Amino acid sequence: MPNPTAAMLVIGDEILSGRTRDSNLHFLARELTRVGIDLREARVVGDRAEAIGRAVRELSSAFDHLFTSGGIGPTHDDITADAVAAALGLPLAVREDALAALRAHYDRMGVEMNEARLRMARVPEGAVLIDNPISAAPGFSVGNVHVMAGVPQIFEAMVAGLLPRLTGGTPLLSQSLRILRGEGEIAGPLAALAAEYPDLAIGSYPFNQAGSFGAHVVIRGTDGARVGEAMARLAALFPA
Amino acid sequence: MPNPTAAMLVIGDEILSGRTRDSNLHFLARELTRVGIDLREARVVGDRAEAIGRAVRELSSAFDHLFTSGGIGPTHDDITADAVAAALGLPLAVREDALAALRAHYDRMGVEMNEARLRMARVPEGAVLIDNPISAAPGFSVGNVHVMAGVPQIFEAMVAGLLPRLTGGTPLLSQSLRILRGEGEIAGPLAALAAEYPDLAIGSYPFNQAGSFGAHVVIRGTDGARVGEAMARLAALFPA
Repeated sequence: MPNPTAAMLVIGDEILSGRTRDSNLHFLARELTRVGIDLREARVVGDRAEAIGRAVRELSSAFDHLFTSGGIGPTHDDITADAVAAALGLPLAVREDALAALRAHYDRMGVEMNEARLRMARVPEGAVLIDNPISAAPGFSVGNVHVMAGVPQIFEAMVAGLLPRLTGGTPLLSQSLRILRGEGEIAGPLAALAAEYPDLAIGSYPFNQAGSFGAHVVIRGTDGARVGEAMARLAALFPA
Repeated sequence: MPNPTAAMLVIGDEILSGRTRDSNLHFLARELTRVGIDLREARVVGDRAEAIGRAVRELSSAFDHLFTSGGIGPTHDDITADAVAAALGLPLAVREDALAALRAHYDRMGVEMNEARLRMARVPEGAVLIDNPISAAPGFSVGNVHVMAGVPQIFEAMVAGLLPRLTGGTPLLSQSLRILRGEGEIAGPLAALAAEYPDLAIGSYPFNQAGSFGAHVVIRGTDGARVGEAMARLAALFPA
């Protein structure tokens, strides 16, 4: 059976203005590779309901899972829950279990519940909560859409809680070889090798370090023996 | 006149597998903010002709500019030029000026031209070349699509060469304030302030550093006096 597919949607003006460098995509990409879910596309949109809604509809229809990060805090620019609910045609309301988690957290912290904080207990109807061990405000899964926080520390904790619940596939294995020749020199034999192993993905990533040109060639696949065989052929083609 | 809008398309399996952390989006976002082009969306797709083609068609129709990075090298997984030409319905052929630049570079380096390297001289009909001062293989602009290399050093040099050719808008100015209170506490007054300044974007970015909660509130706009006025109001609302 082919691996499940996924997309990620990063939400936040601060990424598109260059104020903040996103790190959640890279983290999620590594985690999904580890559990055998194929990340096929990622998008970044700003804090605009229409852009979020369109991306949610398109990506949740096209892939088995959609993971989002950002826009679930208490401030006026946090509109992800509203936009996701609207995109899926679901009502959004305060949920008692989410509210209870927030209340317990605020009691421990000695801060007051208020209208802004109450917003974070709103989830679309039928959602399953994603635990937030750091600041209590939960993420949620609704259908195949998994809505998580943008703060990297919280996003990573939510992913750790969520992934064991999802059915993964066969983890992708990879081996890589550093070849100290220009890509233009290795391209021909590499293409021939790739054609012989259509079940593997063979990628070439050039580098230029201290004036020496070369490439990291990465062979990826779900069958470790095939990856090893292709890597042995590659190493014989380009001895160090 | 409103600022021109833009999207970015990052192309490469290595980003989606988590092998490589993209840095080109962050670089481009900062540069576009500086020259007054509004980056509205970014996407990441793998080395698949259909995914690249669909994204190129959608994003080049929806925005004034589309910037791409990745997939223009000599190896079999470098299919961006082919996919962009196909998406726009244009023939792709070796261009004499691109070939001359490559030949001159290879002569200097003492390496041979071959079939793989020749691929990098292929550009869609009607394209304008984007200079590559590092490894000669050019990027190109065709219509409103600007195709550049994925290696950050080369991408950054190409952006530096390209941007002066594009008509920018009014640069976005921003001021930020670090507030040592939880977002849930500042959210109410912040929303009221944002409603009073609909011409500005006011964003709140929470942090949790060594156990203290707070938020960076960023006020962005093209009118420096308005940004300053709103920031003075903000600072008065939340004295240090």
